[in-house]
Amino acid sequence: MKKTLREIADYVGGRVVGDENIVISGLENIEGAGEHDLTFAVEPHIEEAKSTRAAAVMLPEGVEDFPRPALYVAEPRAAFASLLALFTPKLVFSKGVSSEAHIGKDVKLGKDVTILPFACVDDHAVIGDRVTLYPGVYVGQYGEVDEDTVIYSNATVREHCRVGKRCIIHSSAVIGSDGFGFTTKDGVHTKVPQVGNVVLEDDVEIGAHDGIDRAAMGSTVIGHGTKIDNLVHIGHNCKIGPNCLIVAQTGISGSTQVGHNVTFGGQVGTVGHINIGANSVYAARSGIIGDMPEGVFCAGFPVQSHTEWLRMQAAMKHLPELRKEVKRLTKELAKLQAAKE
Amino acid sequence: MKKTLREIADYVGGRVVGDENIVISGLENIEGAGEHDLTFAVEPHIEEAKSTRAAAVMLPEGVEDFPRPALYVAEPRAAFASLLALFTPKLVFSKGVSSEAHIGKDVKLGKDVTILPFACVDDHAVIGDRVTLYPGVYVGQYGEVDEDTVIYSNATVREHCRVGKRCIIHSSAVIGSDGFGFTTKDGVHTKVPQVGNVVLEDDVEIGAHDGIDRAAMGSTVIGHGTKIDNLVHIGHNCKIGPNCLIVAQTGISGSTQVGHNVTFGGQVGTVGHINIGANSVYAARSGIIGDMPEGVFCAGFPVQSHTEWLRMQAAMKHLPELRKEVKRLTKELAKLQAAKE
Amino acid sequence: MKKTLREIADYVGGRVVGDENIVISGLENIEGAGEHDLTFAVEPHIEEAKSTRAAAVMLPEGVEDFPRPALYVAEPRAAFASLLALFTPKLVFSKGVSSEAHIGKDVKLGKDVTILPFACVDDHAVIGDRVTLYPGVYVGQYGEVDEDTVIYSNATVREHCRVGKRCIIHSSAVIGSDGFGFTTKDGVHTKVPQVGNVVLEDDVEIGAHDGIDRAAMGSTVIGHGTKIDNLVHIGHNCKIGPNCLIVAQTGISGSTQVGHNVTFGGQVGTVGHINIGANSVYAARSGIIGDMPEGVFCAGFPVQSHTEWLRMQAAMKHLPELRKEVKRLTKELAKLQAAKE
Repeated sequence: MKKTLREIADYVGGRVVGDENIVISGLENIEGAGEHDLTFAVEPHIEEAKSTRAAAVMLPEGVEDFPRPALYVAEPRAAFASLLALFTPKLVFSKGVSSEAHIGKDVKLGKDVTILPFACVDDHAVIGDRVTLYPGVYVGQYGEVDEDTVIYSNATVREHCRVGKRCIIHSSAVIGSDGFGFTTKDGVHTKVPQVGNVVLEDDVEIGAHDGIDRAAMGSTVIGHGTKIDNLVHIGHNCKIGPNCLIVAQTGISGSTQVGHNVTFGGQVGTVGHINIGANSVYAARSGIIGDMPEGVFCAGFPVQSHTEWLRMQAAMKHLPELRKEVKRLTKELAKLQAAKE
Repeated sequence: MKKTLREIADYVGGRVVGDENIVISGLENIEGAGEHDLTFAVEPHIEEAKSTRAAAVMLPEGVEDFPRPALYVAEPRAAFASLLALFTPKLVFSKGVSSEAHIGKDVKLGKDVTILPFACVDDHAVIGDRVTLYPGVYVGQYGEVDEDTVIYSNATVREHCRVGKRCIIHSSAVIGSDGFGFTTKDGVHTKVPQVGNVVLEDDVEIGAHDGIDRAAMGSTVIGHGTKIDNLVHIGHNCKIGPNCLIVAQTGISGSTQVGHNVTFGGQVGTVGHINIGANSVYAARSGIIGDMPEGVFCAGFPVQSHTEWLRMQAAMKHLPELRKEVKRLTKELAKLQAAKE
Repeated sequence: MKKTLREIADYVGGRVVGDENIVISGLENIEGAGEHDLTFAVEPHIEEAKSTRAAAVMLPEGVEDFPRPALYVAEPRAAFASLLALFTPKLVFSKGVSSEAHIGKDVKLGKDVTILPFACVDDHAVIGDRVTLYPGVYVGQYGEVDEDTVIYSNATVREHCRVGKRCIIHSSAVIGSDGFGFTTKDGVHTKVPQVGNVVLEDDVEIGAHDGIDRAAMGSTVIGHGTKIDNLVHIGHNCKIGPNCLIVAQTGISGSTQVGHNVTFGGQVGTVGHINIGANSVYAARSGIIGDMPEGVFCAGFPVQSHTEWLRMQAAMKHLPELRKEVKRLTKELAKLQAAKE
């Protein structure tokens, strides 16, 4: 897709200052834009936009002396959004069940589903209205996917698992793999059957390569509105509350309970069988090794308050010099003591 | 599935104390149970079960004054297991090769295999008796999967790799991706061909999204009975001993050798080309940077004995106050010295 | 594949010293070799090879008094490489598009492509000459895969994403999953549409289970020649420079820019929206929390120079005894002060 700045100005109803024959081939944010891109800026980013590499910048009326080709519009953000639609062709899928998909026995299919080639809905599964299953998706026996949910390519929902309404499951995510449970005798590990399931409540988003293990018995639950980034591990029997944010590569060990509106930064880890209170934030890399109260902001491993963690980190940087100073003090004190005797 | 407590009592041969018309719709452990679930308790968990939210609790005969609806049986654990079978419909698969699966040239198929739609067994592969391949599984050319192994949806066993008897490979796991090997000249990286394979010995379990890299040459080996949790990385040419437990998100770098019965907690990392002795436990987040003896219990990064790590962690918490105290000592000592002069 | 040492010697044109009837069933490196393997050694590894468990060792002419069965050749490395080809049957794929693959509407296919069963190329996608798509690969609508690229089983290239020439994408990798972007109001998270794409430049290698998120708008870019190991997360709008090496389980948060020839060891993490200068090395587990200059060698979390990190680690080990010494000093000083009064 290529358009001149003039053509774009006509499309969004704007005014060009500078060369209107510049050819635009993409749309980007200020820092990412290259020499053939259009970007946009509103306060407080207009100063930053003066040094963008973009070919031109879409600006609100009233910005003066802008040093680069500019396209003035009333509402840059809205105009830019409409251009995104122009530059990004919409996806169109044939509604219905592809003749190359597999639908098992006794499957209930809702209205207006989109089931693409090589998706496999196994026996006794229930697929709600307007659900989209991309190629390679597997929904196991007795699995349920509720209305308006989208499951991307090669994701798995294992048998008996239940996915709520308006969920998004990204490619290659696995819902309902076996929990990691063994009994050990004489050094040999015997599998504990994992006969529970996973329940994703409504409006949950599951990242690419997330693994949400099924419960040993009962359910592993992800609360409504919780959003999970890529490569996250949720152990068996966890109960994650509603509206949490779990950033990439975090691991929550089995049977841990998390309250609502908890944010885990990236690469956090927790032990199992603990309670983590609601309304809290755990910084990236936190390692949580016991029950935690509500309403905290924590960091570190083992986790502590973020303020204490900052103080400890600061102190650690001074550790080598601290050691030197203590050695000096030891010597000086010995001298004083010797002099006294 | 819904049953009254009375119906369940009849099924397991038990005795109800309390309202026998309570409707039970699920089975759960003590802490996870909700108001429509049945749970069970044996010592030492009976006290804990008194405050469960479960609708009723299955108990051994002899427990008195239990404050909630109870179902008394001789063997609660066994009775509960039989109920799990009742509440969880069994999976039934058509034996044989689905007409929607792909079987390549010169493939050897054992007896009573179950190969589901969109599974692909490539040329010259060997599939043992009673193997189950879920939808989307790919077994590459010359790959071998031995008897009674189950491979879940969208997992990959690349060419020349060998999977033992009674293994379980969870969804989206990858056995035999290329090792990460490059030679660098003038800043440009050239791939070193990875012509080896992966060998999983018998009774190995591989978690969802595990990546077990093929050897540059020879074999990456996972020893018999070793169980690996989700999202684990095993580098090329590693030799992991038998009966190890490797918890989620751990990474073992290339050419590392691990003895038998080693447990790695979650998010552990190791450097490559080291030997890690048998019968050891590494706590979560351990970072192992050199050879390790047998029979140790370690933690931390760089790894140290668990006891030392605990001591160091305790000391670190006192670091800010330690720094203050040293500053005070410096001042006081200077005063003493000044007074002396 | 089994050959006697004599047969192998004939094949590579070499000379056996020791039992030429030894049967060789595999090829391995020195440390990994078992009793039926052949290995090879050149300086400086010949001493090490004396204690290999291999059945025989391929050596350059001129090595004397070698204590194990040996096969002397002019160029052991080259001879060993030719044996690898002999012992590892080559993969042969039928050229063309499998009748079991799905090719959407308006797809452009190059010459000599290999598209295997259950691969799905969605509408409007462009597949270059000599591209190989393994079973279960999904290329989304308007996706582009340039010539000589290989995409392994069950990997995904989502809509509008572009993959360069000679790239390798390993099994189950996901190119173009949605970035993790939400606006939060009253504790409820609303998805920010992720309408950008991912661009992999030429000669990029993407590991198994890597997740490269699409940009919110514009492109997430992986520069030419960059090689990424398994289970790596790259957030939306990142720009990774050319010829980087990113080792397993590393996570780069969104909108971070990385210069050329940067190496990240395993399990590294970075915050988002930072600039990381070129020609640098970050040791395993580094946690990068701000802009970084070019040409550094760093470690630790928060990251610091590798030298400082080593010094700090050393000091930390002495922390418990340091605390004891400070306690002693406090006491001694108090005594001195008391004596003085």
